[in-house]
Amino acid sequence: MWRDLLPIGRHPASRGYRRFAWTGVDLECRAWFKEQAEARGLDYEVDRNGNQWAWLGDPAAGDAVVTGSHLDSVPDGGAFDGPLGVVSSFAALDELRGRGADFTKPLAIVNFGDEEGARFGLACVGSRLTGGQLTVEGAHKLTDGEGVSLPGPWRPPADDPDTIGADPERLARIGAFVELHVEQGRALDLSGDRVGIASAIWPHGRWRFDFRGEANHAGTTRLVDRRDPTLSYAETVLAARREAELAGAVATFGKISVEPNGVNAIPSLVRGWLDSRAEDQASLDRVVGGIEKAARAYAAAHGIDLDVVRESFTPVVEFDHALRDELARILGQEREPELKVPVLGTGAGHDAGILSGSIPTAMLFVRNPTGVSHSPAEFAAEDDCVAGVIALADVLEGLACT
Amino acid sequence: MWRDLLPIGRHPASRGYRRFAWTGVDLECRAWFKEQAEARGLDYEVDRNGNQWAWLGDPAAGDAVVTGSHLDSVPDGGAFDGPLGVVSSFAALDELRGRGADFTKPLAIVNFGDEEGARFGLACVGSRLTGGQLTVEGAHKLTDGEGVSLPGPWRPPADDPDTIGADPERLARIGAFVELHVEQGRALDLSGDRVGIASAIWPHGRWRFDFRGEANHAGTTRLVDRRDPTLSYAETVLAARREAELAGAVATFGKISVEPNGVNAIPSLVRGWLDSRAEDQASLDRVVGGIEKAARAYAAAHGIDLDVVRESFTPVVEFDHALRDELARILGQEREPELKVPVLGTGAGHDAGILSGSIPTAMLFVRNPTGVSHSPAEFAAEDDCVAGVIALADVLEGLACT
Repeated sequence: MWRDLLPIGRHPASRGYRRFAWTGVDLECRAWFKEQAEARGLDYEVDRNGNQWAWLGDPAAGDAVVTGSHLDSVPDGGAFDGPLGVVSSFAALDELRGRGADFTKPLAIVNFGDEEGARFGLACVGSRLTGGQLTVEGAHKLTDGEGVSLPGPWRPPADDPDTIGADPERLARIGAFVELHVEQGRALDLSGDRVGIASAIWPHGRWRFDFRGEANHAGTTRLVDRRDPTLSYAETVLAARREAELAGAVATFGKISVEPNGVNAIPSLVRGWLDSRAEDQASLDRVVGGIEKAARAYAAAHGIDLDVVRESFTPVVEFDHALRDELARILGQEREPELKVPVLGTGAGHDAGILSGSIPTAMLFVRNPTGVSHSPAEFAAEDDCVAGVIALADVLEGLACT
Repeated sequence: MWRDLLPIGRHPASRGYRRFAWTGVDLECRAWFKEQAEARGLDYEVDRNGNQWAWLGDPAAGDAVVTGSHLDSVPDGGAFDGPLGVVSSFAALDELRGRGADFTKPLAIVNFGDEEGARFGLACVGSRLTGGQLTVEGAHKLTDGEGVSLPGPWRPPADDPDTIGADPERLARIGAFVELHVEQGRALDLSGDRVGIASAIWPHGRWRFDFRGEANHAGTTRLVDRRDPTLSYAETVLAARREAELAGAVATFGKISVEPNGVNAIPSLVRGWLDSRAEDQASLDRVVGGIEKAARAYAAAHGIDLDVVRESFTPVVEFDHALRDELARILGQEREPELKVPVLGTGAGHDAGILSGSIPTAMLFVRNPTGVSHSPAEFAAEDDCVAGVIALADVLEGLACT
């Protein structure tokens, strides 16, 4: 099962995955999902927002237990972020069938569309639309690097863009959503555990810094006559690191766009995107406020116009405490004592975080020995992946078979 | 004549020109050149390296006087850099015919291909090939951002890539080349003169700095676990400014390429291009050496691998002293005393600089009131452009009609 998925969208040079939402590669991943569902006799459907579902039992019965994740990737991403959760969901179902489990509630496996936001710039579009955190009007405004807007490629069954949007009826049928994910950090590696339970997702957001100066010839323009936005950008990158260090938070300028981006041209525009996350809202406000204040001072000193736009923001997500405690109980009582399952926070956003505003959600993390993710070097050992499948099967059995 | 050329390749949003070598827009500019040549009864030809020529008189007679410039542009460039020299050449010929000038030597107007290097990364490809400074093998290695290599689009008459290359027979027929160009700086504006004569072109080069770190998730990777190349890049940008200030030189990081360039991904690679120029070789060595040394220290501190590659280099160009003095004599004796013509250096590279290794070359500059170039804001007043045409006509008359 895993092997069929591995070659799809892998870039031959970087060895990283480029599975961007609604590209041909993403459609191949989606075809794989449909095949897996049908091979298991599950009822396959695509919801109004393009998310894929595979049902065991009657969805209309209510109180369904849902698991799954996403299949798209960041540019040159790893093999595990997303796909591990989907593959483990099918494998956990196989495990439960092997155990002869008797399901008393409907079970579903889901693949949410465009979780990474690599193409349209907004993460978790599929779950945001379903949960109503992204409006249809907001979705219509999203465009990719080629100017293609979201509704165009947002296909079956959403050929008609008016069919996309909040889906409260669907959410009302779900009693619990559990997402398994490779850990994006080294907490489990440092504690020596294979599997963990998520406590909370840090508040996080993306801010766009537009530094506007004046394009000019790099060879003939005296330094004193320049308004070069590159300098203010560089100073701001370094300020972001300092502010994040002070607050015990993270701040990253990972994406940049320069105009005209010519070797012998002083840029007219340097656009840098800041991603920042912190344990709580007050810390995050302090970090981003500090970076913006520093950037404004640098820009003013160089005659640069600066606009700062918050492109997205997700407040702190505390996962449902009752469900989290239930997972800890299931995994605690049924396992050997040395296989303890710690509870840990994360800086990464997830569909589970988005849906936690609407339904009880929880997450399981699988150990990542290097902590690397969003890179071809992202890794989880086979033993740990199997431990993740068993833990997910235990949880699904505990929730859906009682 | 000027009006026909203005709309070609102008980007509707930036109002800047995007006339990249061998694109459809460039071919339109080339068609315009051919029309202008034929409308004046000149003999039109394209040489083996794709440069366009319009001849008055027999090329084989030898000791030809040649003028011209280029029609391609940097990304979002201005209207004057290049085209002013070509348009002024045709206008100067019209002026001389109006004067009833009697040509005793052959005269040619030339449009050199791919002067700016905006597409293939190397400036002055047409003149470098002709002069032999770029080998056929070297040309074959050049590729644009889409991986298209030079020989492919290097068309008429070079359908067969083996026809490109050094053209000493052609150069041997030329007695003098004079290029008129808009000034890329404010020296004439500061001195209050309309037209100037070039003394020398500063030595200049392009260096690529590859900062390689480790891609990782921007939300979950602790600062201490990061190897983020953006930080070393930012520190190097600021070091470049400091080193250039110390040496009275210029240094610019105007182009950048980031991988994977995702908002929530710590980059694996930040590639920055440095353009640096100084009055003499020793100063330039000091500036670039200082920047590289600083960059290596920053990279080592952050666990970043750094490669520095010199992509191109042009030593100082002293224009032919005899020709320069001849221009000063012609423009000095034939003009009203208040229209003095100063001699000035420049940091910009030109086809005239490339050809100065093979034949006597000279340049005339036309005042640019803001000094801005390589930008839509590049400007020369109509009166100054007319003064440039008259000066060029005087020079051509002095050189070709005596």
